[in-house]
Amino acid sequence: MSIDAYMKEVGQQARSASRKLASVSTEEKNQALCAMADALEAARPLLKVENAKDIEAGHAKGLDAALLDRLELTDARIDSMIEGLNQVAALPDPIGEITDMVYRPSGIHLGKMRVPLGVIGIIYESRPNVTIDAASLCLKSGNAAILRGGSEAYYSNQAIAHAVKLGLKKAHLPEYAVQVINTTDRDAVGKLISMSEFVDVIVPRGGKGLITRISNDARVPVIKHLDGNCHVYVDDQADLDKAYAIAMNAKTRRYGVCNAMESLLLHKDIADIFLPKLAAAFGEKGVELVGCAETQKILSGIGLATEEDWYTEYLGPKLSVKIVSSMNEAIEHINKYGSHHTDAIVSQDYSKTRLFMTAVDSSSVMINASTAFADGFEYGLGAEIGISTDKIHARGPVGLEGLTSQKYVVMGDGHTRDN
Amino acid sequence: MSIDAYMKEVGQQARSASRKLASVSTEEKNQALCAMADALEAARPLLKVENAKDIEAGHAKGLDAALLDRLELTDARIDSMIEGLNQVAALPDPIGEITDMVYRPSGIHLGKMRVPLGVIGIIYESRPNVTIDAASLCLKSGNAAILRGGSEAYYSNQAIAHAVKLGLKKAHLPEYAVQVINTTDRDAVGKLISMSEFVDVIVPRGGKGLITRISNDARVPVIKHLDGNCHVYVDDQADLDKAYAIAMNAKTRRYGVCNAMESLLLHKDIADIFLPKLAAAFGEKGVELVGCAETQKILSGIGLATEEDWYTEYLGPKLSVKIVSSMNEAIEHINKYGSHHTDAIVSQDYSKTRLFMTAVDSSSVMINASTAFADGFEYGLGAEIGISTDKIHARGPVGLEGLTSQKYVVMGDGHTRDN
Repeated sequence: MSIDAYMKEVGQQARSASRKLASVSTEEKNQALCAMADALEAARPLLKVENAKDIEAGHAKGLDAALLDRLELTDARIDSMIEGLNQVAALPDPIGEITDMVYRPSGIHLGKMRVPLGVIGIIYESRPNVTIDAASLCLKSGNAAILRGGSEAYYSNQAIAHAVKLGLKKAHLPEYAVQVINTTDRDAVGKLISMSEFVDVIVPRGGKGLITRISNDARVPVIKHLDGNCHVYVDDQADLDKAYAIAMNAKTRRYGVCNAMESLLLHKDIADIFLPKLAAAFGEKGVELVGCAETQKILSGIGLATEEDWYTEYLGPKLSVKIVSSMNEAIEHINKYGSHHTDAIVSQDYSKTRLFMTAVDSSSVMINASTAFADGFEYGLGAEIGISTDKIHARGPVGLEGLTSQKYVVMGDGHTRDN
Repeated sequence: MSIDAYMKEVGQQARSASRKLASVSTEEKNQALCAMADALEAARPLLKVENAKDIEAGHAKGLDAALLDRLELTDARIDSMIEGLNQVAALPDPIGEITDMVYRPSGIHLGKMRVPLGVIGIIYESRPNVTIDAASLCLKSGNAAILRGGSEAYYSNQAIAHAVKLGLKKAHLPEYAVQVINTTDRDAVGKLISMSEFVDVIVPRGGKGLITRISNDARVPVIKHLDGNCHVYVDDQADLDKAYAIAMNAKTRRYGVCNAMESLLLHKDIADIFLPKLAAAFGEKGVELVGCAETQKILSGIGLATEEDWYTEYLGPKLSVKIVSSMNEAIEHINKYGSHHTDAIVSQDYSKTRLFMTAVDSSSVMINASTAFADGFEYGLGAEIGISTDKIHARGPVGLEGLTSQKYVVMGDGHTRDN
């Protein structure tokens, strides 16, 4: 069968399964999730055998150590997949809720009912555990899923797919509710992101390269997460103890995460007293600083930040520092150079915090709190399929609700429209 | 200046204006809307002079009578644009609302703030009044607008744009908050729908050809409205008086609208008694019927509906009729052949109506009510930029809220994240 014909069949099967999933009860979905957990547990020896094939092939292909580490299915990682399935089963079901029910002058009742999006395509790179993550969140939100993992994890993903299928079967749900693409041919991705008749939304999970490529080529809407170039602005009215704690936490809690601070903006009136102490602490942690010319006057040893630096998400122990002469300059800098992910102000001035909250165009705006809070679990979403840097549909951390839509429901009793 | 350079400048100006609009007060926006209304009134003679140029050019190009009619700016239409501006000024401002404010175990307060999308590109065909519609809705929702009207309405749109600019100026809002593209070059559209750095969403308004073309080529998210192939299903448990009223209203209230019924599905047990009476009434109205073989057995004179008929939005006095043996068959037919716009059931059976509401995958699902209610004004949205047949972001009638997004706001008091 050609790739086109195969993908079309996958799409048709997903669409058909999604129609059935729309009316499935919460209990049936939860039973399937728990049955998948059992099937994974039972398949543990097989998962390791299949995973070993991927690892071996990875060695042969000369994959680097970090990539090989991400590929590996250790017992702890299998435990964590099983635990994840049980956690998703325990989450409230978003589907079916009817809100905003109003009585209109025409005599109809009108409300909004939360419904699945339909079919979700997820494209991801090397970690095989994403297969379970994505399958469980899509199923819980009533969506059929088409999953396309990285070719390096082919055997692992197929083995996980088999356990997923057993779980669906045991709960009498459509076997095509979750499909893992069984070819590593790249044309399959091209077809997946252009079958708008069968796929309602694409969620790419991986590096910026993957996401940019998919966004450029997709003919289906994409919920995408590009970079997290996050800022902390320390105002002249800041409580500098709070500012110190927040700046250190935002930068050094973890370096490789999208909610880490990448640029620190300081009001000129507090830079002299605040910066040396902070720079010393960053120095102890091994964080490299670059700064504007004004910053260099205070910290003589550091490099000059280039225009490129202000745009950069370092994802590592490096930070750019800029001294600004007003909050407005900070806001303009953030809106120009930032990635609209997460940005914070530290200030005790009530009016300034209120203006910053409104004027900064980011998916999360923090007042006197660390950027590190921008996270689905910290926000109480229970699970996270990703963090959206888009503005339409879902913005910021995306949980189950981001995988749903709302339709209007109208109840009348023979009502017709006059004009 | 090249088209590319011109459009880039338009994009940059819009982005810059949108940053300012994000913090503008409701009063300032309303003042601008009212000042635009005054400017239109003052420009009435000029509008007619400019409009006459378009009409003359249209005659010369041999445009058909319907198109020429849509182009014309009569006094009544100018009145209606002015009235529209005042109505939008009177609508509640969606921007700034903070909802779902919760207190998290970490000690932060977390809420969602409603914010503008940013820059909205609107592409439309011949009616010049859309220029005012689109400008007013975008401005009220805090968005900068880039408007591209049809080339046939070039002079009219430029004259309206001038009045819009005067209104913005009088209210001291950024003059680039609304820009009407001043070239008829088609490359401008291509550039507009691909400048994702300057444009956040595209709303095409016009025929299916325009919308399909734009959706296929856009690199910016599109809120689109394709066809309205709407169904009414009359169940064996229907109150046939209600069914008659609803079917007649859904089909014959207006033929050219997207919420009109295009296909009638009848349960086999009531077809014999219901169909002849209904067919006679449709006959009196001049509605042509085509039907399935079973329908033909009851109405011997009508044509056989082809596979193509079931997919067709006639937008005219024609209706396809199908007899089904169960509600499930009706649901499957609707989900397969429909356009997921608006579909209705007529039934007195409680359980069936509840299942239909859940299982039909359409932006509006009606129970015992005419499909004609699917409309922004009937739904109380106050105004309507279009009806979305998409599932992501906005679904069904789109009012001001559909032109907004939500960002997370977090308030702490020096809070940092532990793990």
